[in-house]
Amino acid sequence: MDKKEIISNFFKDYNLNQENLNLIIQQAYFKKLPKDVNVLADECLGFVIVLSGNFRAFIMSNTAKEITIFELNKNDACMMCQDCVFEKIAYNIFIQSTQECEILIIPKELFTMLKDKYPKIYDYVLKLMAMRFNALVNILEQALFTPLSVRLNEFLKAKAKNKIISLSHEEIALHLGSSREVISRIIKTMQKEGFIQQNRKEIIILKDL
Amino acid sequence: MDKKEIISNFFKDYNLNQENLNLIIQQAYFKKLPKDVNVLADECLGFVIVLSGNFRAFIMSNTAKEITIFELNKNDACMMCQDCVFEKIAYNIFIQSTQECEILIIPKELFTMLKDKYPKIYDYVLKLMAMRFNALVNILEQALFTPLSVRLNEFLKAKAKNKIISLSHEEIALHLGSSREVISRIIKTMQKEGFIQQNRKEIIILKDL
Repeated sequence: MDKKEIISNFFKDYNLNQENLNLIIQQAYFKKLPKDVNVLADECLGFVIVLSGNFRAFIMSNTAKEITIFELNKNDACMMCQDCVFEKIAYNIFIQSTQECEILIIPKELFTMLKDKYPKIYDYVLKLMAMRFNALVNILEQALFTPLSVRLNEFLKAKAKNKIISLSHEEIALHLGSSREVISRIIKTMQKEGFIQQNRKEIIILKDL
Repeated sequence: MDKKEIISNFFKDYNLNQENLNLIIQQAYFKKLPKDVNVLADECLGFVIVLSGNFRAFIMSNTAKEITIFELNKNDACMMCQDCVFEKIAYNIFIQSTQECEILIIPKELFTMLKDKYPKIYDYVLKLMAMRFNALVNILEQALFTPLSVRLNEFLKAKAKNKIISLSHEEIALHLGSSREVISRIIKTMQKEGFIQQNRKEIIILKDL
């Protein structure tokens, strides 16, 4: 898809006039990011639409323990870089590419003009924010009230492609805010009980988790 | 303060025209709430400004364990009841009055009209949302990465009025997502070490926590 098509598609429900649509098509730009780039650290990008790849937003403790708070995949948008939001958000949120990614960036000045002019776009941004808030509530709930073994089960199910999870124990630990040792211990038990099988950097689901 | 004064004061930075300001003064209404009313459960109120009292927003597990995610005090505003936000928010967030409260409610239809007309009001709502998000990140971070004894210390300091905390162990446990037994055990240790003294439903700070 070319830029014009992506943008027309993304904004099709917002009744933008042709002039504003053209402005976006002129000013928006593609960016390719390699794996492991910290998006928020670099600069305030503007409004970001993910075209390919995956980003992981996480928080980190003083002792470098991490927990994933949301992920961004194809067609997801992110407004975390918007000034009005960003200045209120803790600096300890990290958004990192977990693989090679391509994004489309609408510069923040332009996006600010658009949301001031089109309340529907503002509604959309607010809904995005509410969705992230909701995801965070779910994670807090799980982290506090759900045993780690159950959370690990859910996580493996969600991450499996054709019953295969291509993540190391260390990576899983970072997603779940746990340590590699604890994750390895639970996975060993699951293997003993015949639920999964392990290869190098790969877990295969054998029975329903 | 009368309604006109409260409203003019609250919206003083938003350059509302006189007609819209009058609409708010006409349509906004006061509501007194007794202790322990669940605000979200009743109805979608609209935009709420807290005039007196205290509200506690919390999430609850299947096993009725709770953790406070933010509090609302005098002059705080809440947009959790706004349609556009509410429909995206998990139903397991509770907002409850912890004492007798008085609130001023701007009906949601009117508030929706205002934020569509005044982008600055929308910015304000988005900032509120970002603030709550930030608070939630901090709580998640603490709950996961900070020992409970440290969190309890911080909580007691924050809640003390003239070095006195008027909360039961049970109430403290609900704020921190812990159990009464665990809180009692830590408090007992703190008492032994001479940091606090306990009376009936009251904790007194003796030394710097």
